[in-house]
Amino acid sequence: MENTPPPSPFPGLITREQEPLNLELPFPTLTEPVLPANRLFVRSHFPVPALDAATWQLRIEGAVSQPFTLSYDELRQLPATTLQATLECAGNGRARLTPKAKGLLWEQGAVGNAEWTGVPLSALLAQAGVAPDALEVICEGADQGTMNDEPKAPGVIAFARSLPLAKATRPEVLVAYLLNGQPLPPEHGFPVRLVVPGWYGMASVKWLNKLTISTEPYAGYWQTLEYAYWQRHHGQPTLVPVAEMQVKAEIARPALHEAVPVGQPYRVFGAAWAGESEVTSVEISLDQGKTWQPARLLGAAVPFAWRFWEYSWTPAAPGRHTLQARATDLAGRTQPTTHDPDRRNYMINKVASVEVFVG
Amino acid sequence: MENTPPPSPFPGLITREQEPLNLELPFPTLTEPVLPANRLFVRSHFPVPALDAATWQLRIEGAVSQPFTLSYDELRQLPATTLQATLECAGNGRARLTPKAKGLLWEQGAVGNAEWTGVPLSALLAQAGVAPDALEVICEGADQGTMNDEPKAPGVIAFARSLPLAKATRPEVLVAYLLNGQPLPPEHGFPVRLVVPGWYGMASVKWLNKLTISTEPYAGYWQTLEYAYWQRHHGQPTLVPVAEMQVKAEIARPALHEAVPVGQPYRVFGAAWAGESEVTSVEISLDQGKTWQPARLLGAAVPFAWRFWEYSWTPAAPGRHTLQARATDLAGRTQPTTHDPDRRNYMINKVASVEVFVG
Repeated sequence: MENTPPPSPFPGLITREQEPLNLELPFPTLTEPVLPANRLFVRSHFPVPALDAATWQLRIEGAVSQPFTLSYDELRQLPATTLQATLECAGNGRARLTPKAKGLLWEQGAVGNAEWTGVPLSALLAQAGVAPDALEVICEGADQGTMNDEPKAPGVIAFARSLPLAKATRPEVLVAYLLNGQPLPPEHGFPVRLVVPGWYGMASVKWLNKLTISTEPYAGYWQTLEYAYWQRHHGQPTLVPVAEMQVKAEIARPALHEAVPVGQPYRVFGAAWAGESEVTSVEISLDQGKTWQPARLLGAAVPFAWRFWEYSWTPAAPGRHTLQARATDLAGRTQPTTHDPDRRNYMINKVASVEVFVG
Repeated sequence: MENTPPPSPFPGLITREQEPLNLELPFPTLTEPVLPANRLFVRSHFPVPALDAATWQLRIEGAVSQPFTLSYDELRQLPATTLQATLECAGNGRARLTPKAKGLLWEQGAVGNAEWTGVPLSALLAQAGVAPDALEVICEGADQGTMNDEPKAPGVIAFARSLPLAKATRPEVLVAYLLNGQPLPPEHGFPVRLVVPGWYGMASVKWLNKLTISTEPYAGYWQTLEYAYWQRHHGQPTLVPVAEMQVKAEIARPALHEAVPVGQPYRVFGAAWAGESEVTSVEISLDQGKTWQPARLLGAAVPFAWRFWEYSWTPAAPGRHTLQARATDLAGRTQPTTHDPDRRNYMINKVASVEVFVG
């Protein structure tokens, strides 16, 4: 039995890439609003760094009056916050783009919701004394390596993203060390990661070891050549970092190409999320978007967490049927029917079609 | 004779690309400090737009108190400046990089010096009344199309670059309509182009038709995905637009692999330029950079123009010899011996080696 690989710590996740590790939740298996740690999608850019909590340190420096270094024990002694946050990869849904998009081809499940515990980043910033002309916090992880796709990164780089101070000082942004009450698994950032609720996952820097407060916009690799999209300013496209998650409903069941019995009620079921806003409605279309019926939102709204929903469908006729779901948020934003190419291969929330076979 | 192509308006230039048109000066043919228009390198990103001076307009808008539109006749009635400027393509010398660089493989001659006449951009900015919080001027050309290399541009885009106001308001930056006293040839921007002395050529936007004064840094395609390089800030590489030309000496003669007679004086000859600074010395090495002898600078220094130089060399022994030249500027900056990969495929001014055969 020597050649038997050890059991995966992530049974049932879809492997998108083995090295670095990229795993996706098979979305039709969704049942629980707070996923266990081993059911959360895994997004890695480099090999998982082997860090030791006893030697790990977080350095806070740059445009601050009191730069300082924090140990794992010191961090855990500070007042902590526990909250749910739905994190979605900025490339989730990429398998639905045509022509074939660059990057990992995620289907639906590069998204998950869990409970995180940590120290508000704002508390650490207050302790450091942020300079009045500071703009951003550059958040750097211990994971590093080379990116050889064109355009190449310049040699070995670390994963790093910046947060504007307006977001970094919000109470929900955590320097987190527990996931569902347990220490973080290595693949989810052990010992310490950032959790940035409402923003795509790339902002929640794992294996966090450095915060640099900066007085100018950070134009690092991960917010220019990757995780950036086009916004039109003065009629010309300009590259801006991907940030807040777009409003989105995903159908968990029926699964794509599922066989559904005719003439019986079927419980269409899924989840919806809305970045920093809140899902106010989910609607279902059975006629390619001509008409929409309201789905029922389940449970209570939890800030920054997805919300489950259901819709009872009784298919009257056999044959191919297409289901579509769309969510709308508090600000009235809803999902587009096509993917805006200015978003490149990110922020994919166009209304998706789930074709099923009724018989 | 119906199938005979018309004679090229650029006899003797090397074709790097036919469509769009990209032509290079064969540098060993250099003789005159002010090149005739048909000996200047041509750099195009899209097909040359067919513009009519009678209908051409320049629009000036954005963060200004008095947006306005200017015709070709109106422009030519404003007080004008005539100056020489050496323009070098940011990718000149790319054929010398190993491994093979991305982009057009220019050798030495994507550089040229000519005399330009136009209205200082500062005069137009003063007329428009720039807002106190303005940062940059986005300069847009009439040339447009698609860029399909990865990473792709979002659909049809125009060529556009921004200039920080600190440079845009310098007296040498011209909205130019004459080249060596004649209207601009179509390939050089007819009817009107920007000329930004001291900066790489991409700043001198051809077929100029729009100036937008902006209060934020412009992150357009041509200064993020193209014409940008890495600067290290806080230990991490950040992407910044290519701007000022680097100090550089180029050997025109001997040409690469030229046969040089033994025991006779040979006039080594070339040009040197130094961006916004001034060339203070050119030196020659015949021993792979171990020792350097001064070359003689010719003529008088002309601001923003290259300067010719010569060096008398009497090769004593037959066989392979290598010549190297390096320039130094007023600020003491000189040429590196290797290409810094943080510069990507731009700003190539490493000391080049010209191997010749003495016999």
